[in-house]
This record gives sequence, structure tokens and C-alpha cells, in this order.
Amino acid sequence: MSIASKGLEGVVAAETKMSFIDGEKGVLEYVGIAIDDLARNSTFEETVYLLWNKRLPTKGELERFEADLRSRYAMPAGLEKLITSLPKSATPMHMLRTMVSALGMFDPSPDKNDVVSARDKALSILAQTPAIVAGFDRYRRGLSLVEPKPNLTFAQNFLYLLNGEMPTETMARAFDVCMILHADHGLNNSTFTARVVISTLSDMYSALTAAIGSLRGPLHGGANEGVMVMLGEIPSVQAAEQYVLDKLAKKDKIPGFGHRVYKAYDPRATFLKTLAKQLAADTGNQALYEKSHRIEEVMDKAVAAKGIYPNVDFYSATTYHSIGLKLDLFTPMFALSRIGGWAGHVIEQLEGNRLYRPDAEYIGPHDAKYVPIGQR
Amino acid sequence: MSIASKGLEGVVAAETKMSFIDGEKGVLEYVGIAIDDLARNSTFEETVYLLWNKRLPTKGELERFEADLRSRYAMPAGLEKLITSLPKSATPMHMLRTMVSALGMFDPSPDKNDVVSARDKALSILAQTPAIVAGFDRYRRGLSLVEPKPNLTFAQNFLYLLNGEMPTETMARAFDVCMILHADHGLNNSTFTARVVISTLSDMYSALTAAIGSLRGPLHGGANEGVMVMLGEIPSVQAAEQYVLDKLAKKDKIPGFGHRVYKAYDPRATFLKTLAKQLAADTGNQALYEKSHRIEEVMDKAVAAKGIYPNVDFYSATTYHSIGLKLDLFTPMFALSRIGGWAGHVIEQLEGNRLYRPDAEYIGPHDAKYVPIGQR
Repeated sequence: MSIASKGLEGVVAAETKMSFIDGEKGVLEYVGIAIDDLARNSTFEETVYLLWNKRLPTKGELERFEADLRSRYAMPAGLEKLITSLPKSATPMHMLRTMVSALGMFDPSPDKNDVVSARDKALSILAQTPAIVAGFDRYRRGLSLVEPKPNLTFAQNFLYLLNGEMPTETMARAFDVCMILHADHGLNNSTFTARVVISTLSDMYSALTAAIGSLRGPLHGGANEGVMVMLGEIPSVQAAEQYVLDKLAKKDKIPGFGHRVYKAYDPRATFLKTLAKQLAADTGNQALYEKSHRIEEVMDKAVAAKGIYPNVDFYSATTYHSIGLKLDLFTPMFALSRIGGWAGHVIEQLEGNRLYRPDAEYIGPHDAKYVPIGQR
Repeated sequence: MSIASKGLEGVVAAETKMSFIDGEKGVLEYVGIAIDDLARNSTFEETVYLLWNKRLPTKGELERFEADLRSRYAMPAGLEKLITSLPKSATPMHMLRTMVSALGMFDPSPDKNDVVSARDKALSILAQTPAIVAGFDRYRRGLSLVEPKPNLTFAQNFLYLLNGEMPTETMARAFDVCMILHADHGLNNSTFTARVVISTLSDMYSALTAAIGSLRGPLHGGANEGVMVMLGEIPSVQAAEQYVLDKLAKKDKIPGFGHRVYKAYDPRATFLKTLAKQLAADTGNQALYEKSHRIEEVMDKAVAAKGIYPNVDFYSATTYHSIGLKLDLFTPMFALSRIGGWAGHVIEQLEGNRLYRPDAEYIGPHDAKYVPIGQR
């Protein structure tokens, strides 16, 4: 049997109990629970527990999970030394890929990948990634690094490590919701990458490092930067309509609209839009939100009939900007959250592993001879 | 269309003009030239040129390619500083994955991936990997790092950087042949990983870093360490027969025998066997070679009829040991060589890219409700 399908579209390459997508109907569920339900009611920590255990935790289980995660917030001292000797010009995604990989060098048994060890390593990496991203950002800004606080939630802790001060409640909540929304999404490219890599029975560090490298591509996680760039190019709310219509006339894509999977409204965008509005008002970024909203109105009239709606990137850009994140930290935020999903898939793969080893079709010459160099 | 094939076996996931494998007949060709022909007559540099350009170079082209490669042997000063501040206990594959990733932070435009830029970055990474591996090994042994010499071949340069002295001709030749033999091998897991990662239009660093992570798994590149472990467990040539028969009786696998792809003699093992013998004699490792040879004889009687023959790992273990490489440097040697193949595949992918985005089959619950924590 030999089936060519470029990009493996339509080929089932894994089973999962984590997320379910119905793009036609605009449905995303984590372990059967609608994403909007989770966004409104859950937390990132609880969502990760759900993805890793395929059920919601009891109160006691959640408290223990949170305590365990929080006890691991600090990165190894050696890693902090490495981070503060990196080139300040490094882009955060190249830095993050390298530092998550580096964590494997500070682990006395990095290769262990029975399911218990794999979960343990995933929890540490998840806990330490905020310190890595925030630490590097402070270092490149010439600021000293901040110690994590084990009494903070994942979202609070990241924002505290980044800014050196406690975030407002709205900020922490909006950020937490972004983390929930990005945690898992079927067999996207980076998740598939993580499963392919672990299938050689390599290790959690190798799998997550590889996934970060995939995520940074502009056809994947890198897309959310484009929304912010567009918002920067539009001088005012009034100018938004003409900008969009001009782009559409030239058949240019509008960043943050449309999704390979969704032909209906991206279910991750609904609640985020509400939060983005509130956060923009709180932080004096109302004009930015209004620009976004105006773009959506124009797009709705122009192309919604074709199934092109705002996706999760669209309002997460406004959210991240309102929180004060620099543009090149947008994709690392995606990674922070998706580590939950990647790690869950790695564990699923380990539970029923088979090496990924597809075929290539060879389309070159055969039976060529090695011609000595003097005779070429 | 939806086809489940665990491990994607039998699914064509890419086209390539680089290598062709006929496992039944024991054929491996690079761009149509039999691997044995290349091993006997070519060099690693010429082989990489062949894989990247789909033809052998003229004398002038090869000279320019070699000169370009050699001019890039030295790693960035910042990277050398990083290497000499890593934990000495780090395993070389975790180190190599991290340092190849780190190279992206020293590149002022790491994300460029037009084909010309991608080749340029690949050439630098290929040139600098020997300095990274040898540099870390010297650092952990407490020795000072050695400056690369631009008048040396790739193989000579690596052995010189590792040992601080020029290798013998036989050593350099045997090592060069190992590099030729491991450079490409169809759509193996690490090569597939590299293509999946670059398909998001990420970058050469992300793709090669991911591939190194895949290679280190025991179901892939990590397998060659097992051969050496086995040789260490067999006290003498005389003891080899009983050791092998005992293992076979227990249905244990014999490291270095059999290959998912080859049902005939691995075409990479033929010439390597000759070289391993000569090198062992030169370096006083004759007993080791004789042990290997005896294992092959016993296996030939016992299981060759079932299509189980020595694979490339079997005699590369003896070769690497005779050269003086420590066990945990065996898989990094595979990586050094395979970077040639990985980079070639990344370039092929960029030339006709489509995002890899297979489907997952969701096998969990649906329409679950978020139950408030107090009611669970």
C-alpha cells in the first residue's frame, strides 16, 4: 500500500483522547468539554490536568497538582547563568528552543521516558518556561531577573517575572484564558512533530524542543505577529475599512482571519473578544480594540459568507499588546501554553508507540556510475 | 479520504532525488550511485555536494565547495563560551541538540529560508558541528579547546579537534567512509522530522535541532551504542558463539543485526567491514574486530536465512572504538554525517513546500459539561 498525500492531508496519523475539532461547525472540545466552557470557567492549571488525565480533578487533586507545579517555578541556577550570557539580539523563539533543549543537560536522567518520568519532566518544563522567557526578556532589557513566587498562579507568575510587579486581576485572567485557548488543537504541525520525535523513544526534551522549532514558522505559530503588524499599519479606526478593502482587492490575506481547519467562527475567539475589550479599556488601549473590532465588521460584510472569520490569533494580538508584551514574545506565549498539549500527546504516543517511518518516492536517476573527477 | 496507518508505514510522505533504497535487494544509491561505489571512491565533502546538487562536482566546483566549508570550521566565539560553561555531565546528544539550536542565536538573520540562504546556513552548521562535539568532549575531559585547521578535510579536522593531533591516514579514511555511509537514508524518522518542521517555513536551525532530537532515540541513531555494549559484555572471541546463541534462545535482539528496511546484506556494511579490520589491526584492537567477525559468523549460520544480516551500525561500532571515540560520541558521529542528508531534504522541502498537517482520530468523550469543582 502506498498513498501519496502531500502534507499528509486527510491521513490519520494518530489517535488522541485530548481535543476534538469540528471545523465546519466551529467546535473545539478538550476531553469532550467545549473550549468556551473551559475559557469561562476553568484555569490553565486545571486545563492541563484535564488534558493529561482525561478528566477534571477533584479539589484535592487540583491543589496537589498546583502545589507541585509551583514548587518547580525556579529554573536551575546553571540555566539562569546560560541565559544571562546569550546574545541579547537573539530572537525569543530561537532562545526558547535552545533553553528548553538545555534543560535536558541539567537533568541527571534526561532520557527516562516511562510515562511517570515523562510526566514529571513535562511538569518541570511547563513550570520553568515562564522563568526562561521572562528572564531572557528582562536580561535583554538590562534588568535583573526576578525570583518566581510559589504562591502565584501560572499566569500571575509569568506576568510577575516579566514585569517585576503583580499584574491586575483582568490582566492575569485574560492571560490565563489565552493559555487555556492555545493548549491543544488536534494534530497540528508542532504536535505532530512532538509525536514523530518521541516515537524513536528519544525523550521529552527532544520532543518539546522540536515542537518549538515547528511552532515558530510563519505557517504555524508565527502567524499571530502578523495581526499586530497590521494593526500598527492602520493609523486610525476610520482608516481600517479602506485598509482592509484595499488588501482584499489585491487578494492579500488579512492576518488573523480564516483558518485551515475552521469554516465557522473560531470557537476560541468568542470569549477572548470580550476579554480583549475589557482589558483594552483597563489599559488605555481602547483605540487598538476599536480598530480590531472595525476590521472584524468590515471582514464580516466582505467575506464571512465564504467561511472566513476571525481566528484565535486575532484577539490574542490585542490581548498580548494590552498586557504589554513585545511583538516577538507573542509566539513564545503560544509555546508556553502549547507545552501542555505537546506533553500530553508525547505521553499518549509513549502509551502506544510505533516508530513513524513513512516512505519517500524516489524520483532521481538510477544505476549511475561514479565517474573519476578527472573525467567529469 | 482518511487512512489510518500506524507509524505511517507504506504512506508516501515526500518525494526525493537524493537516496534510493531497495531493501529486498540490498541496494542503497545516492543520486543513482551505489553506496559502495561512493564509499570506495568518494569523500564526505564530495558526497554532500552530490546530495545537495544532485550531481558530482567538477574539480573546480569541488575545490570551491571544500574551501567554503573549511573557511567556516571555527564556531562563533560566543558559542565556544557557552560550551565551556555547560554541565560537564551533559550527554553529548543533548549538548549537540542544544548547541546546534544555539547557533541560531548567533546568526543575524536565522529565519531566512530562501534556498540560497538555507544552503548557506546548512554549510555553516555542517562545518561547525565537529568543533562543537570535539570542543565539548575536550572541555569535559578538562582539556583546552583546539583551533580548527582550514587545510584539513572534514574527517581530519574532526579527529584533530578531538585529539589535538593529526589522525593517521587509515583513521581519517575510515572515519570519512563512516561519514559517507551515514549521510542519507530515505525518509527515516529524523529526516522526516526535519521536513515536517521546515514545512511551517520555520528555519534550518529548527529543522536540524529537531532531527538531532529524533536521532538520539534508541529506535533510531541510538542503536549503534548497543553494539559496543554487547562487545564489552563478551569477554573473548571464544565466548562470542555461546553469548549469541544464548541471546537468540531467549529471543533477544542482537544489536547491529537486522534492519527495518534491509532484508539483504546492508550495502553500507560491506566496505566498512574491510576498513574496520584494517583499522583494528593498525590500532591494536584486533581482538575486538575478531569478536565482531565471530558474531557475524555465528549469526550467519543461525539467522541469515531469515534476512537478518549485519547493518551499518555493526562495523561502525568497531571503527569508532578503534578511532578512540567514547561510547556516548557514537550517535553524535551519526548526526555529524546525517546533517548533510537532513539539510538536503530541508532544501528539497522548501523547493516544493506544503505544510504537514495530518489528522488525528479523536477517541475520547463528547458533549461533556464543565462541572464546578465543588460538585465533582
